[in-house]
Amino acid sequence: MNAKYMEFALEQAKKAALMGEVPIGAVVVLNGKIIASAHNLCESLKDPTAHAEILAMKKAAEVVGDFRLTGAELYVTLEPCAMCSGAAINARVKEIIFGAADPVKGALGSVTNLYSFNFPNKPTVYGGIKEKEAVQILQDFFKAKR
Amino acid sequence: MNAKYMEFALEQAKKAALMGEVPIGAVVVLNGKIIASAHNLCESLKDPTAHAEILAMKKAAEVVGDFRLTGAELYVTLEPCAMCSGAAINARVKEIIFGAADPVKGALGSVTNLYSFNFPNKPTVYGGIKEKEAVQILQDFFKAKR
Repeated sequence: MNAKYMEFALEQAKKAALMGEVPIGAVVVLNGKIIASAHNLCESLKDPTAHAEILAMKKAAEVVGDFRLTGAELYVTLEPCAMCSGAAINARVKEIIFGAADPVKGALGSVTNLYSFNFPNKPTVYGGIKEKEAVQILQDFFKAKR
Repeated sequence: MNAKYMEFALEQAKKAALMGEVPIGAVVVLNGKIIASAHNLCESLKDPTAHAEILAMKKAAEVVGDFRLTGAELYVTLEPCAMCSGAAINARVKEIIFGAADPVKGALGSVTNLYSFNFPNKPTVYGGIKEKEAVQILQDFFKAKR
């Protein structure tokens, strides 16, 4: 875990906002290098699975050439939902580092903590990293929408 | 819920086995019609998210032209994992009908019941539908692998 990588996830979130997508960004880091980055694209792609984390993990798997991202760190600006937390298990992600908590859909401590159950290959989780910046981007987006 | 649609999910599972993929199949039904079907493709696509349910929901969203599959029923031969159970929430699926339970990764009653928590838009779940057939396909696959 190195908080500096969250800056790149925040940049991705800002790109999403410019497209009218809910501003959430993610990057995957392996061996100290960013190997994939993405932002939320549900509306543009009309795809319920097109969260930043899913898109970033899919790209990372392409780069690695394996669906197993063993040793990878996933940085994301918002607490992952159940889908994304589950995908990180399937992808063998080592660490998840998130910014703001999500009281509505957050599955790593807010609505439930998915990793408190007996699933295999659970990542270690660090929450609240550059939280203020992540919250600000989301607040600005929803204020402008109203 | 109509158990007859599980037959088509089982057919998909058999197709996966022929490719050497873990044999899990899924179909999405909307207004009494199958609008999407898929099977597990994690190994072939080298994609940690390429579970039968995710691929079927993505195809269904393409057909509907919206990431919201409101009113849709998802039939799947094995109890969904956390990723897939979470994706069904995001996709606004109305009902999930599954065959066999999955003691290792099942998130709708086995390892945990994700829908017992306060998430929005939770589908109604029916488990154990054509369970014997689903188990048989999985057992035959893993027996042949050994």
